[in-house]
Amino acid sequence: MIVPVILCGGAGARLWPLSRPDAPKPVLPLVEGRSTLAMTLERVDQSDLFAPPVIVTGAAHRGPVGAVVDVWGKPARFVLEPMGRNTAPAVAAAAALLGGDDLMMVLAADHLIRDVEGFRATVKAAAPVAEAGHIVVFGIAPTGPATGYGYIAPGAALAEGVGRKVGRFTEKPDAATTATMIADGYLWNSGMFLVRADVMTAELAAHAAEVARHAAAALPETPGDEVLLDEGAFARCPDISLDYAVMEKTDRAAVVEAAFDWSDLGTWPTVLDAGEADAAGNVLQGDVTAVDVAGSLVVSTRPRVGVLGVRGVVVVASDDAVLVTDRAGAERVKDLSKAIQAAPEKVIGDFARHYRPWGNYQALDLGATYQVKRLVVNPGKRLSLQRHRHRAEHWTVVEGRAEVTIDDQILDLGPDESAYIPRGAVHRLANRGAVPLTVIEVQNGSYLGEDDIERLEDDFGR
Amino acid sequence: MIVPVILCGGAGARLWPLSRPDAPKPVLPLVEGRSTLAMTLERVDQSDLFAPPVIVTGAAHRGPVGAVVDVWGKPARFVLEPMGRNTAPAVAAAAALLGGDDLMMVLAADHLIRDVEGFRATVKAAAPVAEAGHIVVFGIAPTGPATGYGYIAPGAALAEGVGRKVGRFTEKPDAATTATMIADGYLWNSGMFLVRADVMTAELAAHAAEVARHAAAALPETPGDEVLLDEGAFARCPDISLDYAVMEKTDRAAVVEAAFDWSDLGTWPTVLDAGEADAAGNVLQGDVTAVDVAGSLVVSTRPRVGVLGVRGVVVVASDDAVLVTDRAGAERVKDLSKAIQAAPEKVIGDFARHYRPWGNYQALDLGATYQVKRLVVNPGKRLSLQRHRHRAEHWTVVEGRAEVTIDDQILDLGPDESAYIPRGAVHRLANRGAVPLTVIEVQNGSYLGEDDIERLEDDFGR
Repeated sequence: MIVPVILCGGAGARLWPLSRPDAPKPVLPLVEGRSTLAMTLERVDQSDLFAPPVIVTGAAHRGPVGAVVDVWGKPARFVLEPMGRNTAPAVAAAAALLGGDDLMMVLAADHLIRDVEGFRATVKAAAPVAEAGHIVVFGIAPTGPATGYGYIAPGAALAEGVGRKVGRFTEKPDAATTATMIADGYLWNSGMFLVRADVMTAELAAHAAEVARHAAAALPETPGDEVLLDEGAFARCPDISLDYAVMEKTDRAAVVEAAFDWSDLGTWPTVLDAGEADAAGNVLQGDVTAVDVAGSLVVSTRPRVGVLGVRGVVVVASDDAVLVTDRAGAERVKDLSKAIQAAPEKVIGDFARHYRPWGNYQALDLGATYQVKRLVVNPGKRLSLQRHRHRAEHWTVVEGRAEVTIDDQILDLGPDESAYIPRGAVHRLANRGAVPLTVIEVQNGSYLGEDDIERLEDDFGR
Repeated sequence: MIVPVILCGGAGARLWPLSRPDAPKPVLPLVEGRSTLAMTLERVDQSDLFAPPVIVTGAAHRGPVGAVVDVWGKPARFVLEPMGRNTAPAVAAAAALLGGDDLMMVLAADHLIRDVEGFRATVKAAAPVAEAGHIVVFGIAPTGPATGYGYIAPGAALAEGVGRKVGRFTEKPDAATTATMIADGYLWNSGMFLVRADVMTAELAAHAAEVARHAAAALPETPGDEVLLDEGAFARCPDISLDYAVMEKTDRAAVVEAAFDWSDLGTWPTVLDAGEADAAGNVLQGDVTAVDVAGSLVVSTRPRVGVLGVRGVVVVASDDAVLVTDRAGAERVKDLSKAIQAAPEKVIGDFARHYRPWGNYQALDLGATYQVKRLVVNPGKRLSLQRHRHRAEHWTVVEGRAEVTIDDQILDLGPDESAYIPRGAVHRLANRGAVPLTVIEVQNGSYLGEDDIERLEDDFGR
């Protein structure tokens, strides 16, 4: 049995406007409306090969990541990072948690692999190599001279009959070098690894002792199914990738070529290339109409988008923002995000969906003295017990059932029922049911900022 | 004193997604966030030259047009057309309404003229020509070989010392012909006319007798400040432009060259050309960030728009829709609108602002069993007395004051107060105040279509 260790991090600023600080890339509906995390969970959902997964993610992302896991509906363990520290500390914590000679399959939650059977067959074939003590990295046959990936030179064949020793790693070579490398049979480094937990821990101790020590120290003494890493200990881990920390130094690195497709969906052009294109080479998702358009990616999560008479464009429209660029521009969306961050005075309102440990909220309308929000509370979750100094709130339940606390009163409200929270009243919204609760909130007040919340009690330690 | 007759029609499908059937082009915030109707009203707001205007518009557009007039805040008369019949019947009705030898200045509400003083000086200079019995058309010196306009060949100079006889009119010539015409001193037909009401009526009777007769018959016997043309009579008017009906036939046509700038804002490229461009030749309106972009028009009425590394694009983002095209494509946005109309199954929800005689509404959120809307009721207006079979409604006042009727009850609600309308209850929302009323409506029900309204009484004859 192999334990999938799914690394679910990365804000993915290169996928603006869908990716946002509190909407991590693996939960975005990037491929035919589905998230890569959901697809990753399905990929390892085979009980004769894989054990329940361990998901390593940021504590701040527990909500949206957990929501995807809940939809999947199978058991999973969580390792929550108090802050991002790159892949080596994440893998070190998972390896220390698992211990023993269990095989761990380290996966990124934001990769796209369509050939599930090919993936499983490759992992199965590589298992004896990992059991023999190698750190197996899965190599991808290059489909082009990409400069954004690491390259692996395969070395001598292994005794196990599968895979080769790793000759060497080359991080992000220049364009001229990639052509030579591809001709020489180099493979892309997929960032997926199969390794025994004890081997990984030993190699980390040998080559990145600080990472191994502090990651192990960040684990609680008796870890349950949901582990919050200790902030002080984990912060002492160097911020370093597994490639730099271990793979480039160890003599146990082996490479097995993947017998499946792979994309890291790192930028919008990779999303275009990974999508199902129509006859004109367009990948269109959502409410999109394209007339005389070719080679373009057009994604909408809500607005109706019409594209006319252009080629090679990338258009991404979300609830509250729109990106328009071309293939070349899409490689530097980070620059645009920075320019937008530097122009805050232009912001009319924030209409993005915000994920919280209890669910999510989204502003629907904003006036000078009022705001309308949709709150979605996940089953079994509740917001903090709180009060506001400057605003009153009207809550109307539209889906699910709400337990509403207002001062000494507790109300049980279903769809089409409402409650009024006067300014200054202590109140709380909870979902005791088994389905999500949706509430429309109308706020009235002279000040409507998110910081007008006095939290009296909170399930999430805020 | 000259009476401005402002023709305020045209759905402007070429300006999708801002233009919509119930949001006519003259009320759209096309130029630096302002509407051309507002600018047209200001242009004729000079009491020693212009009398209060007569606005000819579709009865269905009375609401949004009236809202712009209300903001302007000066007296105006309205002539409401039960259906669009092109410019000749509209001008005929206005001429019959005015009667006598008053000068009427026929203006389109969707033209942009920035040089207000030049406009007024030109009109003043042309007045003696119109008083002498000519129909003065204002000609624009061509700024390029546009094929979408009518061209005027100036003829002999007039005795009045201003203007010339019209040699001939040429409608929308081909590109080769326009170059010759421009070299020969032809002018563009601006569609603005200065003429005595009695002269216009006589020339219509002579050259378009059906138009003159039925338009006059459509007027009530004692017209007030707001005239609804008779549907039966007005429907009998041929659908014809003033150019075809009169100007190409009359021997009274004179042309005076405009000493001011002019644009008809007919397509997005004309909006680009009319806007204030930055150093890179971009016209950016709303919450727009452009990085490495040139020669582009980017307009947003709400979403945050980021454009990166493209040239010559046209991007227009509204509450619920996005257009992406280039200059050439923008000339055929109508094609795209048609394609979108043909793809209704893709519609997730209609989040556009809809104008009604009482104000406007906009959907903010839509679920399987609920919908959230913002209703804005203009001062002194009320919705119909109505009931719904399939939905209940929660109303929360957020701006202004509401008079809410629910069966036998009448409530007076201010901001932060709410009311519940049970399914089947007879109800009405009215604004008795002097400022707009804004209400957030949360609907719950198994069916939420606009057609679930049983109207028991309505101020607007619906």
